[in-house]
Amino acid sequence: MPSRYLSFRCSVPWLILLLQALLLTRSYFGFPGVSDTYASSNSYPAFQDVTHMVIFGFGFFLMVLRRYGFSSTGFNFFLVVLGVQCSMLAEDLLVFIRGQQNQVGMESLAKAVVSTTAVVISTGAVLGKANPVQLIVMTLVELIFFYVSRCINRTLLEVPEPLTVMHVHLFGAYFGLALTSRFPEPPPGLDKNRSTPKSELLSVLGTVFVWVFWPSFNSILADSKKKAVLNTYLALAVSAVAAFMLSALTSKDGKFRMAHIRSAALAGGVAVSYTAHLIQHPWIAMILGLLGSVITILGSHCLQVMLKPLNGSWISCVNVCNYQLVTLGVNETFSSSQRCFNPALKLQDTSGVHFTFGLPAVLGAVAAVVLRVVEDGIATQWNDLSSLGYTAFYYIGAFCQTISTALITGFITETPITQNPPLPWCLFCISLSLTTGLILNIKLLKAV
Amino acid sequence: MPSRYLSFRCSVPWLILLLQALLLTRSYFGFPGVSDTYASSNSYPAFQDVTHMVIFGFGFFLMVLRRYGFSSTGFNFFLVVLGVQCSMLAEDLLVFIRGQQNQVGMESLAKAVVSTTAVVISTGAVLGKANPVQLIVMTLVELIFFYVSRCINRTLLEVPEPLTVMHVHLFGAYFGLALTSRFPEPPPGLDKNRSTPKSELLSVLGTVFVWVFWPSFNSILADSKKKAVLNTYLALAVSAVAAFMLSALTSKDGKFRMAHIRSAALAGGVAVSYTAHLIQHPWIAMILGLLGSVITILGSHCLQVMLKPLNGSWISCVNVCNYQLVTLGVNETFSSSQRCFNPALKLQDTSGVHFTFGLPAVLGAVAAVVLRVVEDGIATQWNDLSSLGYTAFYYIGAFCQTISTALITGFITETPITQNPPLPWCLFCISLSLTTGLILNIKLLKAV
Amino acid sequence: MPSRYLSFRCSVPWLILLLQALLLTRSYFGFPGVSDTYASSNSYPAFQDVTHMVIFGFGFFLMVLRRYGFSSTGFNFFLVVLGVQCSMLAEDLLVFIRGQQNQVGMESLAKAVVSTTAVVISTGAVLGKANPVQLIVMTLVELIFFYVSRCINRTLLEVPEPLTVMHVHLFGAYFGLALTSRFPEPPPGLDKNRSTPKSELLSVLGTVFVWVFWPSFNSILADSKKKAVLNTYLALAVSAVAAFMLSALTSKDGKFRMAHIRSAALAGGVAVSYTAHLIQHPWIAMILGLLGSVITILGSHCLQVMLKPLNGSWISCVNVCNYQLVTLGVNETFSSSQRCFNPALKLQDTSGVHFTFGLPAVLGAVAAVVLRVVEDGIATQWNDLSSLGYTAFYYIGAFCQTISTALITGFITETPITQNPPLPWCLFCISLSLTTGLILNIKLLKAV
Repeated sequence: MPSRYLSFRCSVPWLILLLQALLLTRSYFGFPGVSDTYASSNSYPAFQDVTHMVIFGFGFFLMVLRRYGFSSTGFNFFLVVLGVQCSMLAEDLLVFIRGQQNQVGMESLAKAVVSTTAVVISTGAVLGKANPVQLIVMTLVELIFFYVSRCINRTLLEVPEPLTVMHVHLFGAYFGLALTSRFPEPPPGLDKNRSTPKSELLSVLGTVFVWVFWPSFNSILADSKKKAVLNTYLALAVSAVAAFMLSALTSKDGKFRMAHIRSAALAGGVAVSYTAHLIQHPWIAMILGLLGSVITILGSHCLQVMLKPLNGSWISCVNVCNYQLVTLGVNETFSSSQRCFNPALKLQDTSGVHFTFGLPAVLGAVAAVVLRVVEDGIATQWNDLSSLGYTAFYYIGAFCQTISTALITGFITETPITQNPPLPWCLFCISLSLTTGLILNIKLLKAV
Repeated sequence: MPSRYLSFRCSVPWLILLLQALLLTRSYFGFPGVSDTYASSNSYPAFQDVTHMVIFGFGFFLMVLRRYGFSSTGFNFFLVVLGVQCSMLAEDLLVFIRGQQNQVGMESLAKAVVSTTAVVISTGAVLGKANPVQLIVMTLVELIFFYVSRCINRTLLEVPEPLTVMHVHLFGAYFGLALTSRFPEPPPGLDKNRSTPKSELLSVLGTVFVWVFWPSFNSILADSKKKAVLNTYLALAVSAVAAFMLSALTSKDGKFRMAHIRSAALAGGVAVSYTAHLIQHPWIAMILGLLGSVITILGSHCLQVMLKPLNGSWISCVNVCNYQLVTLGVNETFSSSQRCFNPALKLQDTSGVHFTFGLPAVLGAVAAVVLRVVEDGIATQWNDLSSLGYTAFYYIGAFCQTISTALITGFITETPITQNPPLPWCLFCISLSLTTGLILNIKLLKAV
Repeated sequence: MPSRYLSFRCSVPWLILLLQALLLTRSYFGFPGVSDTYASSNSYPAFQDVTHMVIFGFGFFLMVLRRYGFSSTGFNFFLVVLGVQCSMLAEDLLVFIRGQQNQVGMESLAKAVVSTTAVVISTGAVLGKANPVQLIVMTLVELIFFYVSRCINRTLLEVPEPLTVMHVHLFGAYFGLALTSRFPEPPPGLDKNRSTPKSELLSVLGTVFVWVFWPSFNSILADSKKKAVLNTYLALAVSAVAAFMLSALTSKDGKFRMAHIRSAALAGGVAVSYTAHLIQHPWIAMILGLLGSVITILGSHCLQVMLKPLNGSWISCVNVCNYQLVTLGVNETFSSSQRCFNPALKLQDTSGVHFTFGLPAVLGAVAAVVLRVVEDGIATQWNDLSSLGYTAFYYIGAFCQTISTALITGFITETPITQNPPLPWCLFCISLSLTTGLILNIKLLKAV
């Protein structure tokens, strides 16, 4: 359908223009003034670090495929810039409904940049299959759904504001996986979609870039910033050492594998993201970092070995459990980076976001529940068990809600994206999701 | 004239040695002590950002031509390091004449690094035509003239100190354009002077680097830093989105063009540089960013279309209006990046600095006048019209003075540079400009 | 001995695992809590800068050889991450013995990252000759010996804590040189070990990266941070200009040589590292930067010219003076970057660390003594000469102790490294050095 694609392509600038006009109008009414208050902890350098990490680090991280050379960094830049504005708009909506006046400040900007990470992670999953137009639509839709999910967590499940934003890895990874599972396979033998040693090396460079900036990412919204920085740094350091170690262990010739290091070096940072500001003892952060790496590498290694005998028959069990499929399929694809686009698989997680961000985020969420319950239990000397169960229920609820919203909305989003629909349909879809978000907000607010 | 060039080349180290000795002597007498006062707003991270941006961002930005590969970054580094010292020397002169004791501090260093941006921007205009020796001489001469222009603005036109430094884009762009117009054409068919896709991609990477650091650049000398950061960030975000949109609109196949994004993504930051610390409402900054992008891309697109019928006869109108020529010639060159060195054109703005920095700076200067007048008008309820006219006159005066000084000195500077004169002539020229600056200073001081 | 190497290689992951387990156990007992105190001077951005510099700057700096392409950055990342943890462990030992409780904070982390620079510098000397396994063992052994050397300086010679860490360049360079002198020559004609223009350019980029971050490196542990930043920046600026000047002077065609700029641009930063926080007058820092550059470039140039007639017979004088040999051999190798692996030489300093870090550090140490004595002398009006001699003696003692410890331990370390010994031997060696460090500590403490 090249003609339909072309006509759609030509409508892209108008789509962007409409969005930009919307954002400008909103900012005219919504942002009454720039606040110039200096917070006690000067957060500007950390904000700059996060901008760097999202634009450059992830830009290079996405360079796995040959055809996404330096230009992937350029397009990633566009998605981030668009996403930040959408994010601020979505953030602003709730405050507007509540009748408060929102001040634009460092913090609202920081929250917007951190939220945009979800889009970048999802882009990693659909890379090589989605065209630029589809990525733009995905950016808008995903950010709105992420905002809705955060709203539910905050108002219904009483998760603190900074923690709701930290679900960004979980949401981004599973949204991307659900979306990529609905995409048609790329034609086999498409040489440009292979990863070359050079593109993998650049991708590892991007990973190291993200690694360096991760402490800023985890600390920017936290209350006790220094603690968050230290715990994240230690978790990352252990995670990176463990990645090299496990990579040498699982490969036959004892060499370090690029793909392993790329996915496991960051696992510690993701695993500790929920709890970095809480952990009192560095060894807990270090253990979390180690577990993150182990889950990422051994998980992929074991699943690959387990899958080998099933290789012929596993397509038949597709309908048994869709989520299971996502997990297995992705593992198979990723652990065999040479045959990255195995045509026998329906699921392709191009950049391995499930291992880099999905699994460690699940580990981190579980660890957050355990740590919180143990801490509260020690504080109350295990007397008030019902309160502990209540706390655990809310944390697990927030986690399940985020992951299921991500999977469901990812599956839904496929329709407006892969069909290359005409512009009006697409705009209708966006308006619908915006309205849904609004109505949900109002209902929740009334309930509260 | 290879023999003359060689003899000149051999004198370069001595020229640098002489300069370095001058700087050392000056610093022995001039800097009585290092001040170790912590400003309330810790400006060191912002200073580090600006250093990064000038050395790396612009270094990659200048990589448009194939033959200026990574080595352009190295030479850019040299020019910046030399320029910072010259700038501190020039800065110091006025204080010395006034009989005050100057303290070397973060702020004087920051001012020096920001001033050096003028040199880097001008380098972008003459790239591929000037040899290293000419670039060194240009660095010295341009910084002295920029200092003189700043002096006039500050003492005669009462522009606040930080704003005079912000004229750096305007001065750098028009100085470079005036200089490049007097250079002889490079021989046609010089393959090394073409831009390759890879070099353009690296240049876009450099642009994104500059983009990320721009909020630090605009805020480092401002009083209300956070406001400057927020307004600049919003203007840049809108500008980047508009650049992608307009690039898709103006190209026939709806694709994004590297050259458009490279020039327009930064336009917002330049346009808002005069007013970032003043703007109270974010939507004004966003509108400015949008207008900056529109001027850059549509301007170049329209002028290209207008020029097409004139293509054969336009050389005859060269003498009609020299400034007009600069504009037109540059547009033609830039918008057709494939034939970047069209031999029919006398003017070549290699990196498109006129669009990236020149036009948005003009827009920003106009916007500064309008905003200031409107603000003062609202404050006085439009009663004191003469005072408003007075304010507007000073602002417009500063703008005209800067642009005309840049153009005139750019034209003058060509003589000592392109003739490859012997060393004594060159030194005489430098001494002359230094003395002119001094005399001008003393006269101005007496007048005040 | 490929089979022995392979068996050793296979034991690497277990070695890393053992180390990681040791570090985790230690952190369980040793780090009772994360301190969350905000220092008055927010050091987090500076810490981030130093991390960047060590991971990226030195990573690219080490890319001189063709076969160490981007992967050298990856492996450098691993060494740094491992080294930081070892360093924290070593740091923690003394506090543990003294019976104090150590708090993990920004400062202990910063000290660990700065100490790790020694490893990265030594890696530059043995690059192309050591395999990954040897580099890992070197990391551990070197950090322990550096810690022992720092301990002696602090407890016996009463050098202030931050200054002991600043001996990192001296220790790293001479440890690496002593180690590389014992390595067998690489087989001639190994094409992968040559440097290509592209790899040299990337190395220069890495140098510029390190240059930008050097002020943070020198100031992170200093008391008066701003003074350290300003002095370092000025020294670096003069050093870079002088590097370009001297490079044009010493080359025949007046062109700038990559190798010169790579080694001399950083010399100023190293030379000023001991005294950056003390120097009151910027011109002293600038003179130090100039001298650093001159020593680096003219030293290498003169020694090369002096060596030419000796070229046939100089091997016979090997046993006359071993230290002299290091110096001469290195110069010869480095100044002729085209024949970087001259088979007639026994010593190969691959990245020229002797010139970039060794000689300027010696200059800096001497300058520190002179400055301190002059300052004290002026304060006491040269009356208390015995006290001056005492001060000078301690400073010179610390310098000699560091350099001799580096050379001796470098020579010793060769045995466990180049013999590719079986794992138990290697672990025994590590335990031995750990125990030596402990015993030395306890003795020193009792003595004090």
